[in-house]
Amino acid sequence: MILHHVIESQQFTVPLLLELFDRARIMERVVAKGGTLDYQHKIMATLFYQPSTRTRISFEAAMHRLGGRVCSTEEAKTFSSEVEGEQLEDTIRIISGYTDVIVLRHMEMGGAARAAAVSSVPVINAGDGSGGQHPTQALLDLYTIFRERRTLDGLTIAMVGELDRGRTVRSLAYLLSKFDRVKMYFVSPPEVQMRHDILEHLEERDVWFAQETEIDTVIDAVDVVYVTQIRPGRMQEREKIQKYFMDASVLKKMKPDAMIMHPLPRTLELDKAVDHDPRAFYFQQATNGLYVRMALLTMVLD
Amino acid sequence: MILHHVIESQQFTVPLLLELFDRARIMERVVAKGGTLDYQHKIMATLFYQPSTRTRISFEAAMHRLGGRVCSTEEAKTFSSEVEGEQLEDTIRIISGYTDVIVLRHMEMGGAARAAAVSSVPVINAGDGSGGQHPTQALLDLYTIFRERRTLDGLTIAMVGELDRGRTVRSLAYLLSKFDRVKMYFVSPPEVQMRHDILEHLEERDVWFAQETEIDTVIDAVDVVYVTQIRPGRMQEREKIQKYFMDASVLKKMKPDAMIMHPLPRTLELDKAVDHDPRAFYFQQATNGLYVRMALLTMVLD
Amino acid sequence: MILHHVIESQQFTVPLLLELFDRARIMERVVAKGGTLDYQHKIMATLFYQPSTRTRISFEAAMHRLGGRVCSTEEAKTFSSEVEGEQLEDTIRIISGYTDVIVLRHMEMGGAARAAAVSSVPVINAGDGSGGQHPTQALLDLYTIFRERRTLDGLTIAMVGELDRGRTVRSLAYLLSKFDRVKMYFVSPPEVQMRHDILEHLEERDVWFAQETEIDTVIDAVDVVYVTQIRPGRMQEREKIQKYFMDASVLKKMKPDAMIMHPLPRTLELDKAVDHDPRAFYFQQATNGLYVRMALLTMVLD
Repeated sequence: MILHHVIESQQFTVPLLLELFDRARIMERVVAKGGTLDYQHKIMATLFYQPSTRTRISFEAAMHRLGGRVCSTEEAKTFSSEVEGEQLEDTIRIISGYTDVIVLRHMEMGGAARAAAVSSVPVINAGDGSGGQHPTQALLDLYTIFRERRTLDGLTIAMVGELDRGRTVRSLAYLLSKFDRVKMYFVSPPEVQMRHDILEHLEERDVWFAQETEIDTVIDAVDVVYVTQIRPGRMQEREKIQKYFMDASVLKKMKPDAMIMHPLPRTLELDKAVDHDPRAFYFQQATNGLYVRMALLTMVLD
Repeated sequence: MILHHVIESQQFTVPLLLELFDRARIMERVVAKGGTLDYQHKIMATLFYQPSTRTRISFEAAMHRLGGRVCSTEEAKTFSSEVEGEQLEDTIRIISGYTDVIVLRHMEMGGAARAAAVSSVPVINAGDGSGGQHPTQALLDLYTIFRERRTLDGLTIAMVGELDRGRTVRSLAYLLSKFDRVKMYFVSPPEVQMRHDILEHLEERDVWFAQETEIDTVIDAVDVVYVTQIRPGRMQEREKIQKYFMDASVLKKMKPDAMIMHPLPRTLELDKAVDHDPRAFYFQQATNGLYVRMALLTMVLD
Repeated sequence: MILHHVIESQQFTVPLLLELFDRARIMERVVAKGGTLDYQHKIMATLFYQPSTRTRISFEAAMHRLGGRVCSTEEAKTFSSEVEGEQLEDTIRIISGYTDVIVLRHMEMGGAARAAAVSSVPVINAGDGSGGQHPTQALLDLYTIFRERRTLDGLTIAMVGELDRGRTVRSLAYLLSKFDRVKMYFVSPPEVQMRHDILEHLEERDVWFAQETEIDTVIDAVDVVYVTQIRPGRMQEREKIQKYFMDASVLKKMKPDAMIMHPLPRTLELDKAVDHDPRAFYFQQATNGLYVRMALLTMVLD
């Protein structure tokens, strides 16, 4: 299947997702063997207008594991702001004349689509604004579940935290709605619950979901608990937010084969005591990001 | 011909320019074929004391397209300022012990020459101070015209904008003066017109030039209009600076085979409406920067 | 011998040092021949929470000279500070899932050890806090002396400057104490002299040392004078600190085959007049850093 720009998770159909997962599995074997692939003539630019060391290095390591080359920009923002009239579009037109694929993180929602509109090479969205998309994160989340369970059909998942602002959980909910018999619990304080656009989308697609306010109510029923960051300062009262913490006491109530996921970085909501539990998958998630990004790069470069 | 350091555009003779253009043409074919050359054992350091994403990535992509390797510094300035006594010379001595060529952007005029004086490897000036040089920009400008017209002799060019501070147009005027029957119009508000040193140089070499204050007066006569940035705030009154804008109304008056050039980034002086005109060459200019920088790197590394 | 993490200079035994020096010598020949080694499938991450252009480029050039690949972070600090709860350990766990070796500079003493405790790949300490370690600097210092004299036994050395805060001289004193018949002079103003922990260590190992307050007293007796930075502002009175300056007048009193060393960068304590003296080894020291870092990388990657 042909893939050019990677802008939002919505663009991925189930067959495209399955091809991506197949390729990611192959990439995993390439890395395990310590080899590289045949992309030594390809150049990827990472153009980050907001710094993000982990995401950037994940993409750059992916390109290196493919045998390719990288032109890196750790923080592009400071430069372009020097010239008021300078615009993203001109930069993309120029950089796309030098390289074979552009990985872009931009501070504005829609930045990636604007870039794709003028780029002569594929653009991969590595996050555009806090209200925007971060599709490769959603894809690696999905791959992590798929890799472990070999199917996404019939999955029961709880998404926990500040769901209103969580672009990760929004994309994940969207993608999971494409599979059969998925059940979703949205666990959050009432004031930060999952927004209506997603809930309406799920209703339209006839996906089962429920909104809850305590992790304890649902934890013994789920295959996956997807915990997201609680930003310090937003929900001050510790006793109030503790209901959304993943810690040793919660572990005891989980199914023995459940998965604990988190997009990282974490604040208080994910206790270090959980790290050594075999059900903790968040570091595996990060590593899967390497394979998924390698797979995506091969799909857009081929 | 032997080329070691690349410090200022004055050092390029006509035969050296023609060899550079020949090599740039070859590089264009290398890139088009998707291959790389044989420089896999060579390391280039980009040492930028002032950030410049586009120029830096242009050089780094050039080195990668040659098959070479890059050690990159996005913003060296913050580091060296930590130690008052630290000096450019010590850094260059050290970095030249690690790498095969250094691409330097420095904030002070003469920085590149100081670096070249102590470096054990070639130094390429990627801009030294606003009053200094940026020779590779001038070389790619010249190559863009040469590539299109196959000669620089007999060219009529208008340079437009804040010409007094424009290191790009100063270098271009200097280089063009080496060719036969070139005619230059300098179009600018009287208070920011081309400085006397360049005008005197042209008089000495018997080059035809004229100073104008409106783009309209000359636009139908020129083969190339080279527009440069008007910095917001310097010339406040929009009606006054509009005479130096390149927009759809000006397009109509141009020769059908004329070229519109701009070093980018732009502010208001170059309207986006011009982008789709076949006479717009400014993105091609940027891409030519890749070929010219590849060519320069082969010349200093060979 | 097996080497995994490189955290502090104390971990190096004499046989391990000698193996390192052997390998560094080989690396020198590899570089002189203009070739690269066989590490094209290996990726090194440079994760610098404090910028240090020279040290970072030294490591990155070393990896490139081995044929390997680099994911670079010029200044990681700004990113992680955005999220209060984010911790070094999580970043290391993630980055070690993407790469084959991590070179870490951290602002806190003990940062490298914390990283090594959770990393799935070797961690090399490139400096952790001003009171911490910078073992590769100490190793390249030692190699520079060994390379010139072919032995470290019987060496007489003077260490000069603000010795209380000098992590370089502290590590060097520690490593030299492993060799036979070494004599050390610590030359500094009384208020910034070498700390007791090192002096006690030397006493325990029965190493000869003396504390002096003037460079002149000892300069004619030493094989190596190791000058370190005097930070502007700390010792204000120039006449007072001039006793610790290395300049032309001191040169005359030195042995003809002595070595002048400095970790660089310098402030006032090392005069540029010394640069052209054949006994000046500080730029050679920096270049040796390349070979020693290449050697270390081969030891931890093999």
